[in-house]
Amino acid sequence: MGKTAKIKKLKKKVSKLKAQLVAAKTHTHEVSPLAPARFPDLPVIAGARFSAVAAGVKYQDRLDVMLAELQPGTTVAGVFTRSATRSAPVLDCQAKLGSTSDQGAAILVNAGNSNAFTGAAGDGSVQAITATVAKALNVPENRVYSASTGVIGEPLPHDRITAKIDALKANLSPDAMQDAAQAIRTTDTFPKGAKAEIQVGDQTVNIAGFAKGSGMIAPDMATMLVFIFTDAKIAQADLQAMLSDLNEDSFNAITVDSDTSTSDTLLLAATGASDVEVDQSNTAFRTALNDVMLDLAHQVVRDGEGATKFVEVRVTGAKSNADAKIHALSIANSPLVKTAVAGEDPNWGRVVMAIGKSGAYADRDLLSIKFGDILVAEKGWVSPGYHEEAGADYMQQDELLIDVDLGVGDGTATVWTCDLTHAYIQINADYRS
Amino acid sequence: MGKTAKIKKLKKKVSKLKAQLVAAKTHTHEVSPLAPARFPDLPVIAGARFSAVAAGVKYQDRLDVMLAELQPGTTVAGVFTRSATRSAPVLDCQAKLGSTSDQGAAILVNAGNSNAFTGAAGDGSVQAITATVAKALNVPENRVYSASTGVIGEPLPHDRITAKIDALKANLSPDAMQDAAQAIRTTDTFPKGAKAEIQVGDQTVNIAGFAKGSGMIAPDMATMLVFIFTDAKIAQADLQAMLSDLNEDSFNAITVDSDTSTSDTLLLAATGASDVEVDQSNTAFRTALNDVMLDLAHQVVRDGEGATKFVEVRVTGAKSNADAKIHALSIANSPLVKTAVAGEDPNWGRVVMAIGKSGAYADRDLLSIKFGDILVAEKGWVSPGYHEEAGADYMQQDELLIDVDLGVGDGTATVWTCDLTHAYIQINADYRS
Repeated sequence: MGKTAKIKKLKKKVSKLKAQLVAAKTHTHEVSPLAPARFPDLPVIAGARFSAVAAGVKYQDRLDVMLAELQPGTTVAGVFTRSATRSAPVLDCQAKLGSTSDQGAAILVNAGNSNAFTGAAGDGSVQAITATVAKALNVPENRVYSASTGVIGEPLPHDRITAKIDALKANLSPDAMQDAAQAIRTTDTFPKGAKAEIQVGDQTVNIAGFAKGSGMIAPDMATMLVFIFTDAKIAQADLQAMLSDLNEDSFNAITVDSDTSTSDTLLLAATGASDVEVDQSNTAFRTALNDVMLDLAHQVVRDGEGATKFVEVRVTGAKSNADAKIHALSIANSPLVKTAVAGEDPNWGRVVMAIGKSGAYADRDLLSIKFGDILVAEKGWVSPGYHEEAGADYMQQDELLIDVDLGVGDGTATVWTCDLTHAYIQINADYRS
Repeated sequence: MGKTAKIKKLKKKVSKLKAQLVAAKTHTHEVSPLAPARFPDLPVIAGARFSAVAAGVKYQDRLDVMLAELQPGTTVAGVFTRSATRSAPVLDCQAKLGSTSDQGAAILVNAGNSNAFTGAAGDGSVQAITATVAKALNVPENRVYSASTGVIGEPLPHDRITAKIDALKANLSPDAMQDAAQAIRTTDTFPKGAKAEIQVGDQTVNIAGFAKGSGMIAPDMATMLVFIFTDAKIAQADLQAMLSDLNEDSFNAITVDSDTSTSDTLLLAATGASDVEVDQSNTAFRTALNDVMLDLAHQVVRDGEGATKFVEVRVTGAKSNADAKIHALSIANSPLVKTAVAGEDPNWGRVVMAIGKSGAYADRDLLSIKFGDILVAEKGWVSPGYHEEAGADYMQQDELLIDVDLGVGDGTATVWTCDLTHAYIQINADYRS
């Protein structure tokens, strides 16, 4: 072979090897392939103003602290992690929630440090932050809610935050919700926003919110960090009842890795600035709020650490709704189901396994399983009409449905999850070091 | 640059890229780095004979079916998966267990296909196999136990097994336990054997057994496939009581991936050939049996799919032993703890998270956590004497201890697990396709 041919051949080999290397290495800092095309244009929520700042809590040169100022009379509802080791800001929010006042309120959030498992110093940090915010905005301290997300067990350098309160206050704007969504990200690959608009009579009510969350995401708790705002006028008790209720089938119905955060916080604030009164019985508002919550919950799954597939797990025919949810979560949390999805393997045997281990009632010989519309298994065995190629084709899609009918009752549940990939390992095997 | 120089440079690039590619790809078919140096020399168990054959059930050109023949009077005890979707052979074993007879008994096991979720055909396969074995060895059909391990939901080609029964019978030998251990492997990277010898008066009793298991390993069930034999003479009720009791802190105290098999089977056979009578109160026998069971259980963890670290999780100071085990398993099953271990990251914050989410009682401010002898966290925060470098150094070891004291009671539990690595993803994202 001549030298020119040799060079050509070697160059071809180099380019092939480079491609293989790219395929073998997983890119962890790209935007999730499941991300929405763009951040939505969030509406202004009258009565609420936002700002964000780069305080260098942990990350350098990026927004990492956000402030929301809420007008006098705003009602605030919340749900939180049920972790026995929950963080100082979660405990502080829980203590403050329900206290009413005609004065204003505020929410301050930082990313990079979760102020969890930080002992008495952690409580001190929360106090320092909320006192500074209260003074700057002239609102009562027990109306200042805070949340922190990031590494566990390191002291929160709260001085870096309190030093920025004046700057945050100076920049408050009704249009800055996207900046706030940016500021609360940790391993998130995209900021998450959602909105809804409803008509009540001839008046318009707006709902908008944002969330962060990517790993350490599992249900049976409140959930990651989510902040939702509306200009409707809603009594605190009604607001809380709606939020707790809708949470069960939205944020409490998603899982990335079965691990539950120590910091999960969901706050919903109703400024009342629209002067439109809404209560629990308002179906239109309830539906709109549910849409926003589901949208944000799904975006968290879509940004699941290392996710390449968005999976809906639907269980019907269970003895009860509670049983259905146990089965659905057992499937959604199974590492073997999630790796099969990652490998585009229509391995319904692992779905059978996950149902079997869940602890809830099932009869092996009444089970049926569909992947999308494809009937895969029925009556305790593979369906006679099923062809492996059809399953394999289906699994190549980005969005998948695992649809199980247990055939033993009327209970139903739907949960959402993502696949388990090399990138999850990569992200989490060197997150802190 | 001249062409020769160019070729030299490109060749260098190719060799560098090849090395990077090798590093980026994980080797999944090597022997686990945590494997014992060699398979132990198992003693002959008088009254038991073994053989193994390559029947091509799924794998080609390797042992995949094994037969154990047990002398008349042998008692057999067993524990099994509690999965609601358990396999046909498990259901058959459970139905047969406890039936006594003075005649012989047999155990037949195949690898490659688990005969689970195979409907009525699955039951038919079990019957075909056990009837053929019963006839060949002249033992009652209800004394022939079978187990199958491998893919779920595909019909078991039992003809390939029944065609080999005569060959299996012809080759029965007291020395073939290692072949039997080889034959039952699926994704296992090494065969697992263990033994113990005790003196009862001036007589010797032997215990020996083998196991398979690597993925789909989680406690709260009987366990993978394990077969243990002794020449002691033990009543069936005593044998069963000891086995069920010891199982709780051995096989039911390990987890690889929190997924529970549909096929887990542990059978313990006492041939009585030593004429040494043993009952539940015999502490020496109990201890020796426990040693064998723990040894095999640990080997399953050491062969956990993709494992590079063997981790003992010890929890003390819980409100009860049951609470301690819930906490220990929550830590051992947490993907975030397991990926931190894989990354040699002393991320004790994730241990705090796993305790918090477990659902069992804990008081954040009474917790203390040690990695080995290193006190990492105490009284709700990082220990003042802890240095991250010490933790990071410790995490580089192959065998790790995560030692948690809850400080709220006397409950204790110990469980064993492994780390979660890229190789687990690789093995399970293309196991079947």
